[in-house]
Amino acid sequence: MKLATYKDGSRDGQLVVVSRDLASAHYATGIADRLQQALDDWNFISPQLQDLYETLNGGKSRHAFPFDPKQCMAPLPRACQWADGSAYINHVELVRLARNAKVPDNYYTEPLMYQGGSDDFLGPCDAAPFVTEEWGIDFEAEVAVVTADIPMTTTPEQALDGIRLVMLANDWSLRHLIPDELAKSFGFFQSKPATAFSPVAVTLDELGDAWKDGKLHLTMQSQWNGRTVGMCDAGQEMTFHFGQLIAHICKTRNVRAGSIVGSGTVSNRAVEKDGKKEWVKGYSCIAEKRAIETIQDGKPSTDYMKFGDTIKIEMKGQGGQSVFGAIEQSVVKYGK
Amino acid sequence: MKLATYKDGSRDGQLVVVSRDLASAHYATGIADRLQQALDDWNFISPQLQDLYETLNGGKSRHAFPFDPKQCMAPLPRACQWADGSAYINHVELVRLARNAKVPDNYYTEPLMYQGGSDDFLGPCDAAPFVTEEWGIDFEAEVAVVTADIPMTTTPEQALDGIRLVMLANDWSLRHLIPDELAKSFGFFQSKPATAFSPVAVTLDELGDAWKDGKLHLTMQSQWNGRTVGMCDAGQEMTFHFGQLIAHICKTRNVRAGSIVGSGTVSNRAVEKDGKKEWVKGYSCIAEKRAIETIQDGKPSTDYMKFGDTIKIEMKGQGGQSVFGAIEQSVVKYGK
Repeated sequence: MKLATYKDGSRDGQLVVVSRDLASAHYATGIADRLQQALDDWNFISPQLQDLYETLNGGKSRHAFPFDPKQCMAPLPRACQWADGSAYINHVELVRLARNAKVPDNYYTEPLMYQGGSDDFLGPCDAAPFVTEEWGIDFEAEVAVVTADIPMTTTPEQALDGIRLVMLANDWSLRHLIPDELAKSFGFFQSKPATAFSPVAVTLDELGDAWKDGKLHLTMQSQWNGRTVGMCDAGQEMTFHFGQLIAHICKTRNVRAGSIVGSGTVSNRAVEKDGKKEWVKGYSCIAEKRAIETIQDGKPSTDYMKFGDTIKIEMKGQGGQSVFGAIEQSVVKYGK
Repeated sequence: MKLATYKDGSRDGQLVVVSRDLASAHYATGIADRLQQALDDWNFISPQLQDLYETLNGGKSRHAFPFDPKQCMAPLPRACQWADGSAYINHVELVRLARNAKVPDNYYTEPLMYQGGSDDFLGPCDAAPFVTEEWGIDFEAEVAVVTADIPMTTTPEQALDGIRLVMLANDWSLRHLIPDELAKSFGFFQSKPATAFSPVAVTLDELGDAWKDGKLHLTMQSQWNGRTVGMCDAGQEMTFHFGQLIAHICKTRNVRAGSIVGSGTVSNRAVEKDGKKEWVKGYSCIAEKRAIETIQDGKPSTDYMKFGDTIKIEMKGQGGQSVFGAIEQSVVKYGK
């Protein structure tokens, strides 16, 4: 099924069930008001949401209304955890190659993850506010999952059973703040402002064969100012699957229901053409484009985003339909 | 007033108002069920809680019961944010001095902060479970505040107005996992398991003169296996006050109600005695004791915690009474 959270002036919004084709929706009133509530008591609540979903898909809901992604908050407008991986090692390799740095050996054997802020997520069509363009505003197109309760020491394979929902994320990054923060060794902080999520979160059964071995085998489409810049395969080249990412958290602690775990920037390797490397799939963040330019030309030529720029992030299913709806945001000056 | 969260089998527990002397308590039923609910709508709900608090202190509550810290969850059993600073620069200096590393200049001008997991906090008397002693189990006694909504770009002075509650934290650390994690430059992750908090969270008016300039001028008392190891002043030597810590988060994003912001390990400088340095106030985490030993003797002699060890963390007010109640935890093997 597909679930979304409608704006209603409250902090957590109102849970709605959305039809498979994203055309219509129905409030889940009487079943659960908020998505976190459904996740807290999934085995009891989700069958009721599923019933409503089937009625809605059959066109038989009496109080259905046209679904409007602009009315959406993030599926979880705030969460108890946002842990983001960097599971596409190609992304790390590119960025490091551009500055002549070696990728440490353990990057290939255990996931890189950082703990993100989860108190103030952006809706899929909310403007993204930043104080200044000088900080190097960049989008990052990612896949993210929402978990059940998963106890400490759970294995990667077991952890896959704890995935309740899948959605897309735009993990906004402020590139020029990153070097100083990483040098302080405490990880990203100011360089990671509020993250945005797709209009709907979907259960695994919606993904069919595209969900395999803990990875989502679909194409992450990124359009920057209306121009397609990325058509990256999110499946094949994911170095660590979602079960591995979750198990990484579980090494020393429990993961509780409603935790969001991200894949990191979706990234694909170059192909060799006439002895030359070509990044034919494009990119899911500008930092990667700049890394490629640096490798090829000695310096980056693409600037980061400016106020007024737009970004659209979406994934189409095997039948061509939008699976999660689109993240469509514009970059704005904070306070204007 | 003083607020706590009683265990009731649910994820968020039941909000109770606790008397000033921590002797009695009263469910806040009818006012607010959960602490997050009160924080979400503080201006409306807090005066009602304050009324109940005054009735309780006057001994006139009909349904009061003896307060038992063992029945407490963390005041916020899960939260939308746990951002922990390292605001006592003496702690950083000691740890670096022990390994002959210089403290970077910017450590003195802007706070170090890391984003912690906030999905699964421990109650004040909950056992702290760890997979193995080999990871270097350590306590960290800290002061923490709970915030209101505080918008992006708020100044340190303005941010002080957004502090709703103060409590104590035991920010458990796995010391031997830290070097590898910091080397990966993504910050603490597996090295920071579930944090515990004091039985009660208190409003600023409860602290009187002890709350000054965004710092809590009281003594952090740490007892390890029944022996007092730390009597550290939390006020004087706090390099960055809580307004500065909050404003550090606000540089690039909003801080939302119910965010928890920590001080980092409370730490005091050595005093000179007969030309020798003496750390007379003791320590609020074992890593610091080991750093002192390394500076003095060339190597550490104090081991980290073992299964069965206990830690008690408490603060007494100017009149000698416990302000927040005590964190009293034992270290146990996970799954046993």
